[in-house]
Amino acid sequence: MAVPDGNLPVRAEAIGDLIAELSRITEPDRPYTRRAFTPRFLQGRAFLDRAFRAAGLETRIDAAGNLIGRRKGRRPGLGTIMLGSHSDTVPEGGRFDGIAGLAAALEVARGLEENGIRLDHDLEIVDFLAEEVSIFGVSCIGSRGMAGLLPDGWLSRQAGDLTLRQGLIEAGGDPSRLAALKRTDIRAFLELHIEQGPVLEAERSDIGLVTAIAGITRVEIVVEGRADHAGTTPMDRRIDALSAGARLVTGVEAIARQLSEGPTHFTATVGEFAIEPNAANVVPSRARLLIDARAEDRARMELFLGAVSALAGEVAAETGAEIAPPKVISDNPPTPSDRILIDALDTACLELGASRRRMASGAGHDAAWLARITRSAMIFVACRDGRSHTPDEWADTDDITLGAAVLYEAVRRLDKTLQEIGTDGTHS
Amino acid sequence: MAVPDGNLPVRAEAIGDLIAELSRITEPDRPYTRRAFTPRFLQGRAFLDRAFRAAGLETRIDAAGNLIGRRKGRRPGLGTIMLGSHSDTVPEGGRFDGIAGLAAALEVARGLEENGIRLDHDLEIVDFLAEEVSIFGVSCIGSRGMAGLLPDGWLSRQAGDLTLRQGLIEAGGDPSRLAALKRTDIRAFLELHIEQGPVLEAERSDIGLVTAIAGITRVEIVVEGRADHAGTTPMDRRIDALSAGARLVTGVEAIARQLSEGPTHFTATVGEFAIEPNAANVVPSRARLLIDARAEDRARMELFLGAVSALAGEVAAETGAEIAPPKVISDNPPTPSDRILIDALDTACLELGASRRRMASGAGHDAAWLARITRSAMIFVACRDGRSHTPDEWADTDDITLGAAVLYEAVRRLDKTLQEIGTDGTHS
Repeated sequence: MAVPDGNLPVRAEAIGDLIAELSRITEPDRPYTRRAFTPRFLQGRAFLDRAFRAAGLETRIDAAGNLIGRRKGRRPGLGTIMLGSHSDTVPEGGRFDGIAGLAAALEVARGLEENGIRLDHDLEIVDFLAEEVSIFGVSCIGSRGMAGLLPDGWLSRQAGDLTLRQGLIEAGGDPSRLAALKRTDIRAFLELHIEQGPVLEAERSDIGLVTAIAGITRVEIVVEGRADHAGTTPMDRRIDALSAGARLVTGVEAIARQLSEGPTHFTATVGEFAIEPNAANVVPSRARLLIDARAEDRARMELFLGAVSALAGEVAAETGAEIAPPKVISDNPPTPSDRILIDALDTACLELGASRRRMASGAGHDAAWLARITRSAMIFVACRDGRSHTPDEWADTDDITLGAAVLYEAVRRLDKTLQEIGTDGTHS
Repeated sequence: MAVPDGNLPVRAEAIGDLIAELSRITEPDRPYTRRAFTPRFLQGRAFLDRAFRAAGLETRIDAAGNLIGRRKGRRPGLGTIMLGSHSDTVPEGGRFDGIAGLAAALEVARGLEENGIRLDHDLEIVDFLAEEVSIFGVSCIGSRGMAGLLPDGWLSRQAGDLTLRQGLIEAGGDPSRLAALKRTDIRAFLELHIEQGPVLEAERSDIGLVTAIAGITRVEIVVEGRADHAGTTPMDRRIDALSAGARLVTGVEAIARQLSEGPTHFTATVGEFAIEPNAANVVPSRARLLIDARAEDRARMELFLGAVSALAGEVAAETGAEIAPPKVISDNPPTPSDRILIDALDTACLELGASRRRMASGAGHDAAWLARITRSAMIFVACRDGRSHTPDEWADTDDITLGAAVLYEAVRRLDKTLQEIGTDGTHS
């Protein structure tokens, strides 16, 4: 870190304390677990509500169950600058994913308060509801709701006896007002998050300026071979679905490696793979692959999908297996960050002497949903060994504090810049 | 088939009828299912006992639960020529696996009876208990018992509330006499079985002269990679256990194909393959492969094991995954057939005008256990599309009948030949 703590408008100690206190609000036998819609989550929310108010924020919970702390600006009607992330975790997750962003955002609000700085815009700090895949099997519930993009049908999703509708009410939300929630007053959204990857640590960069959140496309390939006796069927008379499946795995990896060598972020992973009948003495008759592909650049995803289709055809021809055309199961386009926000964050890094690199986010975030209704951008801070969604997840408080300082400076700059470019709602 | 039915000493109709009648003794909702140690199996046994006696055989059940039908020879003390197979099935299995061999053996006994031919040796027809992997998780219980090779510990194996000890008693066996069962009077054992593979049908051969039952070696390979976020971990910073596992699958297949091009039977199959955590958005951290390798020639199996060890090392070096040395889980050597019996079967084919080819059995059989105590050999007849262990399993009655005629002629020949070579117990 390039800048001594003493010079920053935000305090490392307060950030470290908030993260430590939230980490203690966990299922005791499964640290760190604070899943949305559970009593433990509501306990964390009660703690955050007190912390928001202690920082001078006026709190409320919106229709989508987001906890919002507000600091009024000097010029009513100018709109809102929003900072935030999420306090829910995956089961046996980490202490920093989402929480680091909340701690940083809250410290920005508190720093402005302590330094007697009043913005022209309203400032809001948000804890989005259920960013992680929740007990209802879906993610980003709060941010989708705020963007007016929560599908109606989701409200009747069930987890045990609980519906999402009831869960929203228990979290303080109001399903009946969801339709009217879509926010039009937000002028900018900024989120700090741990990288959840190894790049910043490896390159010893302080800050990742997130140029885009990668699009995620999931593709299923099913291979049909023929079940034969493993001992009696000669090697040259088999249609082994695992053999074909293995060629697909190797081929997908080779395509992904080639595409990842380009200037933009690309990954593809065969995360799910299973065969049938999966019996020692039977030639496998069926294999199923699920590919998770992520691209910063849509054109590169299209190249990938074309190459995988061709690969499936080649493997079918080579092995005699039946391979249906790869099936796109879900397909979300990439979300480029707002150029004006990135410029402001970049300038803030420069002023603070923070080293930075531009990078894409391979993971999804609430910021992608906010991008549907306003200018949106993120910064990353390093996490140890790139590990996340595990109790081993770790980020240094000093790194998060420097990130909070970058947010602080960027917010002060944007409070002016956004007025210069007007409030016509266009965003680059 | 080269020989018209009318000239044969055995009757196609009787063979077809026996197979059809046994096929009706099945779990009604899961044809064809007659698992050892179930009431349905005992019902089949009762039917077989009647059929054995109708063919002039004196029946008993030995200590290992084998149903034996006996026809006394003219020269007491000369020993026994034994024919047999098994009447139990796998769940949803076929009508011919094991049963074809019983029907053929019984028709040999009946043919001798009808033609008024009395052998010098005693003749026994055996339905071995539980040749298939049984509810107790083990196979060839009856033939192991007859060879004095049923492990003591197996008697306490459980399936639900039933122990194998109790199951043996219910099948008419006597666990207390097992230790004394090992037969020393058997001079030759012959078994007819469906091929359970595609070779005879493809080559339009009537009879497969089984030169050996392949040895079966099972090898486990475990790959340890590293679980990383599929979206945020760059392609060049992963240790993907599935990627390494796929290379192993492809490599094992290549080694097996090369070895299978030799003069003796060789197959290797990755029948079990699974990854962890098997989640769409996580780079696989672990893969486990179970290889089933079968070799007629032990030296070839040794070559295979060496090549797979080298492959594991190469894949570990290429991918960075940790791959422990491949672990041999079970290892049974090949069982060559007795040369004198094969000669007798070959001569019988020649006399009957049956086309034949020498081949190894890739599957295990009771004959491999009998080979531990006597001269042993098998013949195969074709089955449609090589399919077995499925309700679709099919063998033509004419093919089985020709095989029965080969057994008939070989038994008559061996009744003399075995006296010429003496009863010193050596077998080639």
